[in-house]
Amino acid sequence: MSKRGKRTALVIVNTGNGKGKTTAALGLLLRAWGRGMRVCMLQFMKATTGNYGENRAAKKLGIELVPLGKGFTWLSKDIEEDIAMAQHCWSIAKEKLNSGDYDVVILDELTYPLTYGWLPIDEVLDALRERPPDLHVVITGRDAPQELIEFADLVTEMKEIKHPYEGGVKAQPGIEF
Amino acid sequence: MSKRGKRTALVIVNTGNGKGKTTAALGLLLRAWGRGMRVCMLQFMKATTGNYGENRAAKKLGIELVPLGKGFTWLSKDIEEDIAMAQHCWSIAKEKLNSGDYDVVILDELTYPLTYGWLPIDEVLDALRERPPDLHVVITGRDAPQELIEFADLVTEMKEIKHPYEGGVKAQPGIEF
Repeated sequence: MSKRGKRTALVIVNTGNGKGKTTAALGLLLRAWGRGMRVCMLQFMKATTGNYGENRAAKKLGIELVPLGKGFTWLSKDIEEDIAMAQHCWSIAKEKLNSGDYDVVILDELTYPLTYGWLPIDEVLDALRERPPDLHVVITGRDAPQELIEFADLVTEMKEIKHPYEGGVKAQPGIEF
Repeated sequence: MSKRGKRTALVIVNTGNGKGKTTAALGLLLRAWGRGMRVCMLQFMKATTGNYGENRAAKKLGIELVPLGKGFTWLSKDIEEDIAMAQHCWSIAKEKLNSGDYDVVILDELTYPLTYGWLPIDEVLDALRERPPDLHVVITGRDAPQELIEFADLVTEMKEIKHPYEGGVKAQPGIEF
């Protein structure tokens, strides 16, 4: 029997250097919500003060979308603080994963704390293994660790072919955030 | 001055053999809707009788999501009928593009009628060139034609790294449709 056992719920990873990792997770959230499933999205790298298009939409829909982080912090000089923050966010995520309250949990940009060494990959894999059997989990972010790719059921690389910043066009509300 | 002129609205293409092309378009639609933008999604290859997760969500939200096609038809034996159908769908799309009623129009799975030779790429490029200046357009589907990639502002390839069908798991409601 595979590592999955009788589980049919998926671990989905959207990685790569292109657009669409978080956006596809949002689309999946919308689709699942459309079918009456219980969904939740935790944003690891978004400031808790964020009010992006997705936050506004979620508020309108009554979907739980929780910015956990303090924003992109890779310029932080205090690694201890980053680790403590990542652990704090991860403890919230684990609670959600184990709660039994959801059919789909999205861990948006979880790869970054993994890549920066703020959170051990084994902790994440353990939590995924021990989660309720019917819970789908979506993980997004660049540079997904190899262990995560091996563990996951569905992995897509979003690859940048062409980007408008090259043409001098800035990121736009409603389209990119 | 570039082909774009003063236009900042984007033509976005999600292509590739992986998951997430349509799903990311749905996410963008949700995000734009969250910002109060006027959005619409035309589905070129979805049967008009479709009632997928995204259709149900759109209905709940009051978002216009229109299945135009008769389903995946590449096994059809009547090419004339396919061409007539594609032209009919395209005329609806052109009307939407020119209406001025939208900030974002998604042409979901438009690449298929292009690839199958049911619709000339030049007709599509002309319509994109002549669209209202502030209208963002998202086009999805495998094998986006090179001319479309060259014309577009933002192109992402969704690349399959790992797929659960390999492990014997079937497509699941709410997750994949």
